[in-house]
Amino acid sequence: MTTGTTQVRLILVGVGNVGGRLLELLDRKQGTLCEDLGLDVRVTGVSDRSGLAICSSGLDVQEILRLKREGQGVAAYGEWGQPGRTALDLVRTADADLLVEASPANMVDGQPGLGCIETALVRGMHVVTANKAPLVLAYDRLLDLARRHKVQLRFDATVAGGLPAINLGQRDLAAAHIHRLEGVVNLTTNYILTRMAEDGLSYEEALGDAQRAGHAETDPTLDVEGWDAANKLVILARSVLGVPATLDDIAVQGITGIGTDLLSQAMAAGKRVKLVAVAVLEDGGYRFEVKPTWLDANHPLAQLGAKQMGIVFHTDISGSISAAIVEETPLPTASAVLRDLVQIYTLG
Amino acid sequence: MTTGTTQVRLILVGVGNVGGRLLELLDRKQGTLCEDLGLDVRVTGVSDRSGLAICSSGLDVQEILRLKREGQGVAAYGEWGQPGRTALDLVRTADADLLVEASPANMVDGQPGLGCIETALVRGMHVVTANKAPLVLAYDRLLDLARRHKVQLRFDATVAGGLPAINLGQRDLAAAHIHRLEGVVNLTTNYILTRMAEDGLSYEEALGDAQRAGHAETDPTLDVEGWDAANKLVILARSVLGVPATLDDIAVQGITGIGTDLLSQAMAAGKRVKLVAVAVLEDGGYRFEVKPTWLDANHPLAQLGAKQMGIVFHTDISGSISAAIVEETPLPTASAVLRDLVQIYTLG
Repeated sequence: MTTGTTQVRLILVGVGNVGGRLLELLDRKQGTLCEDLGLDVRVTGVSDRSGLAICSSGLDVQEILRLKREGQGVAAYGEWGQPGRTALDLVRTADADLLVEASPANMVDGQPGLGCIETALVRGMHVVTANKAPLVLAYDRLLDLARRHKVQLRFDATVAGGLPAINLGQRDLAAAHIHRLEGVVNLTTNYILTRMAEDGLSYEEALGDAQRAGHAETDPTLDVEGWDAANKLVILARSVLGVPATLDDIAVQGITGIGTDLLSQAMAAGKRVKLVAVAVLEDGGYRFEVKPTWLDANHPLAQLGAKQMGIVFHTDISGSISAAIVEETPLPTASAVLRDLVQIYTLG
Repeated sequence: MTTGTTQVRLILVGVGNVGGRLLELLDRKQGTLCEDLGLDVRVTGVSDRSGLAICSSGLDVQEILRLKREGQGVAAYGEWGQPGRTALDLVRTADADLLVEASPANMVDGQPGLGCIETALVRGMHVVTANKAPLVLAYDRLLDLARRHKVQLRFDATVAGGLPAINLGQRDLAAAHIHRLEGVVNLTTNYILTRMAEDGLSYEEALGDAQRAGHAETDPTLDVEGWDAANKLVILARSVLGVPATLDDIAVQGITGIGTDLLSQAMAAGKRVKLVAVAVLEDGGYRFEVKPTWLDANHPLAQLGAKQMGIVFHTDISGSISAAIVEETPLPTASAVLRDLVQIYTLG
């Protein structure tokens, strides 16, 4: 792994919560990447709503971060900034080995992420995405494109933030059969339910609190109605269980109707209520659902705190394996993007 | 991964709890290995105390298991059995691509495991071991041998049974810095402490119970005095933390002096006592210890049941990641050997 250095020319679409933190990580971890892992990563292009910046010899990550801190877009980047041009323009024209796609999830048509990923794969770039939408909408097509162009498409950051949930299931349980998978994979709803149960907040108070702390969007609909968790379950079903599930296969119920009374009642009965995404094998096929679920207090997912997510795999030969992460900020999610990048070059 | 089939000629040293179950798994998972993972695994040699059996076109796994069930050794295997010959004879002479080393841990000189692993690596075989002793005694030398002979030496099964603890740390946290690692990595002591705390058993009762249930050896000294956990901490230190620790660097305290009173007292105070192996970064270096530790009830390791093991990584960029396994029998440990085998051929 450490014999010689591989140069990685990276382009980034989306410089928000995850993309911005990835840039910070590339800067902060330059020594580790280069000396321990043999990777010389250069950012040769970046795109946000303002336009793009592109420079084949490498942009200055610090300068990009400075522009973002000052509320400017990357199009303001000195001589390399190009206002008004799109993410797709970047992917079509940049000299790059790898695309990191971290634009917001657009569940209607997956754009611009979907087009960027397709274009990158066809151009022979590896792709790491933190964006669920393209995978939920076009999983088979994208994986097939990657195979045909002999590049990798990785997406560990799309499920349960920085927890290597997909890696665990796909790689460490490759020879096992998973007969039940359970996950608390959405931080917003877990934060809300946990604050309601433990601190007696009302739903509205807990949501407001989550929004102020940056754990919920201004429009929390996708999260609180269970669709974000359902998207993640589709990705787990396809990547870990090998089942071509879609959103239509999942019975989805969110947390909006839940009152503090119910949670107190559960606590009093020694239970916890969590929004659990489940895939369970029944009669030869998996049944999928996302719904608020009463869990025994000693269930691994019952014990998750407000800023945690977790997953449990019940298997035939590897026992039951659970994993959880404490995620105070989106930094671990950005670290999962970095993990994918590293594994593309070190695990092959 | 699934284009074409790779033939893997496997030899096995040790047909006990783990080795025997690996043979069962190879039989049971033949379809998955071949069709999903592209691996045609044949057992071309096997060794136990009775001698060895060797056949370059492949032994019948069912026949080996039948002999073991009937209390016979592998030397009784029809025309291919060779009574009285040693494990090292097997490794020296067999046609094989991979050695699985699952002989008992000999902490004095590591034999016969150590010699078998060295010989296999020099002969250009990959090695998967479930045996801690050779790693604790000769980690650097063995890893260096593997590198020089361009083969892999993997040992995920040596720590926390079927939990991919080493994989998680080594691979998923490759770019992260671990400032604290905590593990409940010995099942025997966790079983004893948990039964004492939860069911009010005395130490002797809990130990007897563990022995009857197959969770403790007839001579439990290595486990109950903390040395098994310390061995695992050495392996974690070297493989995950990249620190050349030895047993001498670890302050070790076992569980033999612990009374039921203390555990009840802890429970009453909302705490749990577990035998925790810890590596913590202090003043630029790691401090290592294995000792009975009072944990808050919401600590991920406090919540482990009698048949569980677990690990927590506290990191700079990936938050805190914990993982646990429920391991009713040594089957998951054998599945970790199979996992290593699969990853050698599918991850490169």
